[in-house]
Amino acid sequence: MRNITMLGTGLIGTFYTMTLHGYRARDQIKVACAVNDEQAREFAKNWDIPRWTSDIAEAVNDPETDTVVIGIPNYLHLQAALLAIQAGKNVLCTKPLGRNAAEALQMLEAAEKAGVFHGYLEDLVYTPKTLKALESVKRGALGNILWARSRETHPGPHSDWFWKKELSGGGAIVDMGCHCIEIARNFIGKDVRPVEVMCWADTQVHPIEAEDSAVGLVRYENGAIGQYEVSWTFRGGMDLRDEVSGTEGTIWLNHWLRTGFDMFTAVGQGGYVAEKAEGDTGWLFPVGDEVNSLGYVHMFQDMLDAIDEKRAPMETFYDGYIVNAIVDASYKSAQTKRWEPIELAVWRGSEGGARKIGPSEYDAEHWLIKEEKMPDGKTKLILKAKSSGEISQKFTE
Amino acid sequence: MRNITMLGTGLIGTFYTMTLHGYRARDQIKVACAVNDEQAREFAKNWDIPRWTSDIAEAVNDPETDTVVIGIPNYLHLQAALLAIQAGKNVLCTKPLGRNAAEALQMLEAAEKAGVFHGYLEDLVYTPKTLKALESVKRGALGNILWARSRETHPGPHSDWFWKKELSGGGAIVDMGCHCIEIARNFIGKDVRPVEVMCWADTQVHPIEAEDSAVGLVRYENGAIGQYEVSWTFRGGMDLRDEVSGTEGTIWLNHWLRTGFDMFTAVGQGGYVAEKAEGDTGWLFPVGDEVNSLGYVHMFQDMLDAIDEKRAPMETFYDGYIVNAIVDASYKSAQTKRWEPIELAVWRGSEGGARKIGPSEYDAEHWLIKEEKMPDGKTKLILKAKSSGEISQKFTE
Amino acid sequence: MRNITMLGTGLIGTFYTMTLHGYRARDQIKVACAVNDEQAREFAKNWDIPRWTSDIAEAVNDPETDTVVIGIPNYLHLQAALLAIQAGKNVLCTKPLGRNAAEALQMLEAAEKAGVFHGYLEDLVYTPKTLKALESVKRGALGNILWARSRETHPGPHSDWFWKKELSGGGAIVDMGCHCIEIARNFIGKDVRPVEVMCWADTQVHPIEAEDSAVGLVRYENGAIGQYEVSWTFRGGMDLRDEVSGTEGTIWLNHWLRTGFDMFTAVGQGGYVAEKAEGDTGWLFPVGDEVNSLGYVHMFQDMLDAIDEKRAPMETFYDGYIVNAIVDASYKSAQTKRWEPIELAVWRGSEGGARKIGPSEYDAEHWLIKEEKMPDGKTKLILKAKSSGEISQKFTE
Amino acid sequence: MRNITMLGTGLIGTFYTMTLHGYRARDQIKVACAVNDEQAREFAKNWDIPRWTSDIAEAVNDPETDTVVIGIPNYLHLQAALLAIQAGKNVLCTKPLGRNAAEALQMLEAAEKAGVFHGYLEDLVYTPKTLKALESVKRGALGNILWARSRETHPGPHSDWFWKKELSGGGAIVDMGCHCIEIARNFIGKDVRPVEVMCWADTQVHPIEAEDSAVGLVRYENGAIGQYEVSWTFRGGMDLRDEVSGTEGTIWLNHWLRTGFDMFTAVGQGGYVAEKAEGDTGWLFPVGDEVNSLGYVHMFQDMLDAIDEKRAPMETFYDGYIVNAIVDASYKSAQTKRWEPIELAVWRGSEGGARKIGPSEYDAEHWLIKEEKMPDGKTKLILKAKSSGEISQKFTE
Repeated sequence: MRNITMLGTGLIGTFYTMTLHGYRARDQIKVACAVNDEQAREFAKNWDIPRWTSDIAEAVNDPETDTVVIGIPNYLHLQAALLAIQAGKNVLCTKPLGRNAAEALQMLEAAEKAGVFHGYLEDLVYTPKTLKALESVKRGALGNILWARSRETHPGPHSDWFWKKELSGGGAIVDMGCHCIEIARNFIGKDVRPVEVMCWADTQVHPIEAEDSAVGLVRYENGAIGQYEVSWTFRGGMDLRDEVSGTEGTIWLNHWLRTGFDMFTAVGQGGYVAEKAEGDTGWLFPVGDEVNSLGYVHMFQDMLDAIDEKRAPMETFYDGYIVNAIVDASYKSAQTKRWEPIELAVWRGSEGGARKIGPSEYDAEHWLIKEEKMPDGKTKLILKAKSSGEISQKFTE
Repeated sequence: MRNITMLGTGLIGTFYTMTLHGYRARDQIKVACAVNDEQAREFAKNWDIPRWTSDIAEAVNDPETDTVVIGIPNYLHLQAALLAIQAGKNVLCTKPLGRNAAEALQMLEAAEKAGVFHGYLEDLVYTPKTLKALESVKRGALGNILWARSRETHPGPHSDWFWKKELSGGGAIVDMGCHCIEIARNFIGKDVRPVEVMCWADTQVHPIEAEDSAVGLVRYENGAIGQYEVSWTFRGGMDLRDEVSGTEGTIWLNHWLRTGFDMFTAVGQGGYVAEKAEGDTGWLFPVGDEVNSLGYVHMFQDMLDAIDEKRAPMETFYDGYIVNAIVDASYKSAQTKRWEPIELAVWRGSEGGARKIGPSEYDAEHWLIKEEKMPDGKTKLILKAKSSGEISQKFTE
Repeated sequence: MRNITMLGTGLIGTFYTMTLHGYRARDQIKVACAVNDEQAREFAKNWDIPRWTSDIAEAVNDPETDTVVIGIPNYLHLQAALLAIQAGKNVLCTKPLGRNAAEALQMLEAAEKAGVFHGYLEDLVYTPKTLKALESVKRGALGNILWARSRETHPGPHSDWFWKKELSGGGAIVDMGCHCIEIARNFIGKDVRPVEVMCWADTQVHPIEAEDSAVGLVRYENGAIGQYEVSWTFRGGMDLRDEVSGTEGTIWLNHWLRTGFDMFTAVGQGGYVAEKAEGDTGWLFPVGDEVNSLGYVHMFQDMLDAIDEKRAPMETFYDGYIVNAIVDASYKSAQTKRWEPIELAVWRGSEGGARKIGPSEYDAEHWLIKEEKMPDGKTKLILKAKSSGEISQKFTE
Repeated sequence: MRNITMLGTGLIGTFYTMTLHGYRARDQIKVACAVNDEQAREFAKNWDIPRWTSDIAEAVNDPETDTVVIGIPNYLHLQAALLAIQAGKNVLCTKPLGRNAAEALQMLEAAEKAGVFHGYLEDLVYTPKTLKALESVKRGALGNILWARSRETHPGPHSDWFWKKELSGGGAIVDMGCHCIEIARNFIGKDVRPVEVMCWADTQVHPIEAEDSAVGLVRYENGAIGQYEVSWTFRGGMDLRDEVSGTEGTIWLNHWLRTGFDMFTAVGQGGYVAEKAEGDTGWLFPVGDEVNSLGYVHMFQDMLDAIDEKRAPMETFYDGYIVNAIVDASYKSAQTKRWEPIELAVWRGSEGGARKIGPSEYDAEHWLIKEEKMPDGKTKLILKAKSSGEISQKFTE
């Protein structure tokens, strides 16, 4: 059982609290910290939390709590994490870890130096679908992963601070690209080094400085590609999908808009439909259990179990740092308009490109290009001679 | 926090235990009871349960437990429930409550007489999708419910006792129809009396006495229809869907085969794909979090919270009894080949048909039959004169 | 190349004409007949048809045409068909063939006596998806068909005459059940005799005499079940789906609302979305090529090719008669509230139940009840001894 | 009615012929030309074509034909087109027009100089779904288009020449990227100039020189992005999807693997399932009417109608040239690893960026960043002051 300090009472703090206090949980939030006293008091009251404050240091140093959850705006992560580390508490920080890799590295190093538990609250790699898909990939169901696309787009964030670049550290890339980057990295393999990034980013619609849309390609050392697509201009709700291609298979995940729940209503229902839904009549696509579907439940389970079991969780500050480094390279690429190397001061995976990808052998003399069943029942083989390089085709019954 | 006796260590006992010990739960199973010592011991070991036995009475009367979960074959429900009631413990019984309404009524009356807490473990009305859909229906998003179809079909149950009529009480109707009946009843409204049933049942494929396929229509007092479809002959996995039609809207739920998780694998993954999946190569449709998607998590949350809060849960032995009565009438109808009345010794809903369904008025002189937008942008109205009964159409811009 | 008389210029006549004049077709409509001169003239002008009239006999007897297409209200089918037969022309009649089996039989016998070509314009068995699915079924992909559900529901028909029982011959069953019945019959096999029907029908919402909703079960001689669901009360567009279960497989067809075309629009598009779509903002589900998706293209191709090739088309007046007989039995069952036999004065399929369905043998002593791959990789077999009837289970690696 | 010379009898020639001779078509192929006499003779026999040859010039100059369809390998397009132009015939050429922009430009200029009709057979912009989606976009249903993704991936092409770079002109980009580029261009607007391209291309799996996978971003003058994804390494069939985002809406098209036709078969069906399907048991996703779904039907309808009506078709050699120019820039970018300008010797659209995209005004002093309905029913507005640039939020009821 954990006693928790919750920093942040906005949308993310609400989702976190709903999760931590959900089901028949044995963990408890003992103090809530909001941007001002009024919000803190109301939040504490709603969620039956004994203490509240608007002072981050006071919340972090609450004598009863052993774990600090950071769910406040990006520009406060570093400061809050350092306070929690100083207090010797377990520290769990929402995404992105820092506004940039330098901040993230500072957090990682401080946590490791102090020897405190650190978890990176990257919920979307913990969705039940993603966890099961990752398990299938580990078992080899897809062969070697060649390409992973992760997409998060919606009509724009809820809070005004998101729209201010100096507070958020950026736009849609920092807000959502960090999710997509880490999802693709999990599928491709955390031991495979991300080498370089090509990124397009633009402010297509909104009167803001930060990008409201971006597409990035992250090339890994073994030739695999992680592709992220983020936007604050999407219409129709929240589009949250992953697609993974491997030499032996394919995975498609749809986390939000098409999950087996379709509703048409001519009259509406006078209330909330789903996060970032647009409209409340016509065809709607609610999500059954939102905090479960978004990965919050399995994320906190892993984090708190890991603390109990004195092991590292699936996502640590190290992972958060890698993500920030990829984000930094993305911003640079969007400026220079070319592929930019990913600078990693710390790299703990393999060198030289783990999990090679490449052609299959047909026999001693030939590579197999393709095998296909034809309409007439025959099998067509397309082969390449290793020595001459000649390409030929033949049919077998 | 609850201390629990778990009766049953088969598929259902495993799902229940996985759920009760899942996430960061504070409840604990203290004793497990299986059909023989060996299975009991192994189950207890796997799930870290302190005590085990193959004696139902011993398990029920364990001095430390306050709650008994019945997850054993149908023919043992009555006996086990009476033991638990006698012991004055909270009793939660899996579906179907009895093998027939007489058994179920005996269980209901015994529990009420003893004043013990009783819950009917009808998990499928607790799936997150179903709970959210029911909430939308309560808020009026679908208007009055006219028809609710619930379908559960798969290639047949896991254990041999299911296939023996004298142990199970019947075939696919008792096994799965009970789910479907209660799902439709929740959508149509628990206060609306189910009046009569028409049921087709047949043994289409298997060399057994019990039915392996059935379709039933349950007519409610207000004219709404609950339709259930069950089969042990379906190929392709487990088909678990609900469809609800109301005067103002529609809901479609797909709980298993199309939930936003599609996987193709040419090589398989050497293991479990999803409950009742067929094959492990080609296109597969795994489910993210099975115990959550099947309703177990929210079911036990409601049950155990209800015990803590000294309130009734969403599903009680009374509901189980109503379902058994509808099942009994279904079997009779399958024999007599006509609509059969549903005999209810106990009925606690409204009399006279709650939530009337019927036509809408267009103006003082006319009923509105239909309003439709045409390709040319006009609106076509089809009206019926109240006095003359004459039907006419007119167009408005 | 065919020269055609088109009787009817409403929705169905429009779809037919759009199809016959579609693509690069070589056939031509030479005369159009509407309910009054004005409509006939306008229709002829729009579709570049040389002649028009409001006189059915004149249209039928047009000297240039060789083929008469009947696309007028149900109560006029018999009269129009007799005129066309008398004129010795090829006659193609829309569904349902008659208002009842007696009318249909009269049409069938007249056509056969006169030796004219007769086609039953049951478009929905000609959808490209249905044709391909039927082909797969013929090749054995689903084994023996056990159950076929066909569903057509929408918010109600376009024209006022549909709502008048004396003109249409009934409500949703006559309007749409005829489609569903013939779809299921095609899947189950046209040589298998439909034996009896159980039907629920009700007027749930509209102020009309005819049923606005119905569910019917048609039992075939071999034990297979055809299930139809029709309604004029559905909300959300037109729900047009088929589901087929066989001993070896499953087919699901969605013809209208989920065909791989999803659109969200916050502003609408100022026009037609799809047949019977409701609303023009929010999430919409248009259909690419409506006349192709509804089967009109392949239907007329088969009909006109059959005339050219002097063969029978896939659907003839005989099929229309069988459908009408099933509809008649359905209405009777809805009244008597029990299964009603299907009276067939003419039956040309097999006697004694073609395509037997039943259990599979495991070995000389046992029936196989079920074979299932378990999570631990083993295969579980559930067997029944032929002599003793004992049920047992065993595991194989 | 057209008399046609068909050059090519492989997969593409078969699809074309199936289409041109399909339905009740009035056009006829009078001569077929294959790579050798045997194939030509067999093809002519199968499709009831009066004459055949293996000599391209002879086929083109057939005295009876007025229209030449080029469905032969890429390296022969230029030569065949010049022959047809010289013969003064209508010339329709499959995709890509040339192996590069230089070839395409030569074809365009020759056709225009000679004044012959020229059509670019880009079938995928003619799929019924795409045509209807384009119509909706034209009507403003999506507002201004911001991003269009088109994806075509499958396990690799059918014929060996595709795998030889010198014959095909390249790999997956030339083979399929040309489709995707033109689809995106149609959605974004043909009058908007494509300015520059960023492309990643790699040979991830096959032992070939050409790329087997690529992702490209095409930036248009108004800021819109066309994104193409192509691969010969995809597993699970043919993935053919488009996604379009605009300021007011979204369109998702799935042309192949999820079109409302799901089939499970444990035993297979002994034959063809769908183009590039993998395997014939388990869950399969056939396509109803392949030539219609792939756009061939509407493409030839437009082409031949255009010839009859003496107008330009929707896609001409000019469009083919633009596509080739984008492909050329893509290859260059894949080499230089930076955005490369698209060189257009001929540009006939608008200059200066048609269809401006950008922010919306809230009132005279503010831009609107976002408007969202909150769970509590209020509407939250996020605004930016035009003068100060300050971002604020406010709530309205």
